[in-house]
Amino acid sequence: MKEVCRALGNAAADDSKLLLLSSVGTVFCSGLEPSYLIGRLSTDRRKESTRIADAVRDLVLAFIHFKKPIVVAVNGPALGLGASILPLCDVVWASEKAWFQTPCAALRLTPSGCSSYTFPQILGVALANEMLFCGRKLTAQEACSRGLVSQVFWPATFNQEVMIRVREMTLCSSVVLEESKYLVRGMVMSVLEEVNDKECQMLKQLWCSTKGLEALFSYMQNKGYEN
Amino acid sequence: MKEVCRALGNAAADDSKLLLLSSVGTVFCSGLEPSYLIGRLSTDRRKESTRIADAVRDLVLAFIHFKKPIVVAVNGPALGLGASILPLCDVVWASEKAWFQTPCAALRLTPSGCSSYTFPQILGVALANEMLFCGRKLTAQEACSRGLVSQVFWPATFNQEVMIRVREMTLCSSVVLEESKYLVRGMVMSVLEEVNDKECQMLKQLWCSTKGLEALFSYMQNKGYEN
Amino acid sequence: MKEVCRALGNAAADDSKLLLLSSVGTVFCSGLEPSYLIGRLSTDRRKESTRIADAVRDLVLAFIHFKKPIVVAVNGPALGLGASILPLCDVVWASEKAWFQTPCAALRLTPSGCSSYTFPQILGVALANEMLFCGRKLTAQEACSRGLVSQVFWPATFNQEVMIRVREMTLCSSVVLEESKYLVRGMVMSVLEEVNDKECQMLKQLWCSTKGLEALFSYMQNKGYEN
Repeated sequence: MKEVCRALGNAAADDSKLLLLSSVGTVFCSGLEPSYLIGRLSTDRRKESTRIADAVRDLVLAFIHFKKPIVVAVNGPALGLGASILPLCDVVWASEKAWFQTPCAALRLTPSGCSSYTFPQILGVALANEMLFCGRKLTAQEACSRGLVSQVFWPATFNQEVMIRVREMTLCSSVVLEESKYLVRGMVMSVLEEVNDKECQMLKQLWCSTKGLEALFSYMQNKGYEN
Repeated sequence: MKEVCRALGNAAADDSKLLLLSSVGTVFCSGLEPSYLIGRLSTDRRKESTRIADAVRDLVLAFIHFKKPIVVAVNGPALGLGASILPLCDVVWASEKAWFQTPCAALRLTPSGCSSYTFPQILGVALANEMLFCGRKLTAQEACSRGLVSQVFWPATFNQEVMIRVREMTLCSSVVLEESKYLVRGMVMSVLEEVNDKECQMLKQLWCSTKGLEALFSYMQNKGYEN
Repeated sequence: MKEVCRALGNAAADDSKLLLLSSVGTVFCSGLEPSYLIGRLSTDRRKESTRIADAVRDLVLAFIHFKKPIVVAVNGPALGLGASILPLCDVVWASEKAWFQTPCAALRLTPSGCSSYTFPQILGVALANEMLFCGRKLTAQEACSRGLVSQVFWPATFNQEVMIRVREMTLCSSVVLEESKYLVRGMVMSVLEEVNDKECQMLKQLWCSTKGLEALFSYMQNKGYEN
């Protein structure tokens, strides 16, 4: 998470017009690893829950505050934070191979990445909750028809299609791009900051509580059955 | 309406993790019956308009304030309040036989159930208004593709499909379910309360006015032609 | 723009129940003409940028404040302001021949007509930004499936279909129509006013700046290549 924050910081400072996020390999982003979480929280629950929740908050905040347009090319599965962060980006294109899932309730977690606010806004409250509460998986086509993604391309020509469009965007004036993004985002920025704070506060509480941690453990043990 | 309020109150107090709303028979909910409305308002316009508007307000408020996730299984037609209340619920599944209509303007009524706020949010302003102003009927598939519903199932296996998913949801921790719902809903709760108040205030005014009541009467007389 | 404002003013004052907007010919509305813009701004940059931005602001404000329902029948291409103004109208029907585009960034312009707020609300942030930043063109069917439009009709029977539905709407009580619109719009009116002000302020700044004007000029020169 700190690496991504650093990369965003660098991209903000250089003379690029926009940021293109993608991934090498078959997975776009698998979010926080439950076994990593449990490992950390087992050592020092109080300290680690604050540390991880703060890291999530700072990462999400870096996306909220990024001034240049962020284009995301989702080349494969996007899970957890990897999916919930997409509405904080500006243009989202997906490969036919991509899919989207935020199984937070099943993982005994509450929503993050501002998805408790952005998912209902984009997907409608029914589908947003089905994703957050029931772990509903969206295919690339479903994500596109419901607004999480704006276009889907074939895997074979995915990078090409993305690069054609990104190059066209770079023909635009950087002032116009940044000011347009400011108009689109400025109005909701303080709302997103507040949502992010609340979400991370709740994760911290959950991880700090014996009950929350036990639920996380029991998930790991039952994983074979539930999935 | 009072019965539903009581049922919500009981479900809030017991140790259930979520509430499942459905209906026995072929209709999910047909909303307020115009002939009932006219019958009541004919006896004592001033008193009855306040009484009915207050009952609507309290019913809608009970949905707004309900803390556990509400899953709705729409097994058949959902009309008026029966449709407008759906966005106040959390997960909405529909049978292929369901359809959705809020013919308030044609019935000489203004929107209720917070639909003046939630419908534009979910369906976009154009379709929301076509439903509210023109009585546009949505099929289950249309309601799903536009976000009012998150999944449609075949009538024959509808209950089964719903129960599988509800059982999975009950595996989640109740703390996580309630806290997730709070994150999703907390931000808009005061807005919904305000919208509900305004909508019910307007219905009361309409029912109190000679003009509003005459319009309602003339609807009943012309019903044969218009529909 | 002043003519449309005047027409809205007249329609507000007469005894009509609703306003029907359409266009004669094959194009619905092509927005501000870039060559017109450049012509004006070349004569007196400071004065003309204020004059044009104020005219845009007043036009958009006239739509925001219009109290009767506005029905739009989009018979052909809707570009720029002609597209961005649609979410300020109430019911939007389109002919199969219509398409929608707001190529503001490519034209070296920032969003207008409150599209920086209404487009993300309706289309989701990803598609809204693809329209605003990349000039993505939406077909009538795409605009319908994403909520900008609520129904698409065949060109041959378009006017007929629209008139049937408009006539049905005129059967509704004008009080109910206006009060319903007030419920739907009242909550966001001050937000829309603020967004409109900000958008027009930014256009004025852009047109006033040497850089902004140069970008506009260079667009006109490169038009042959880019399109």
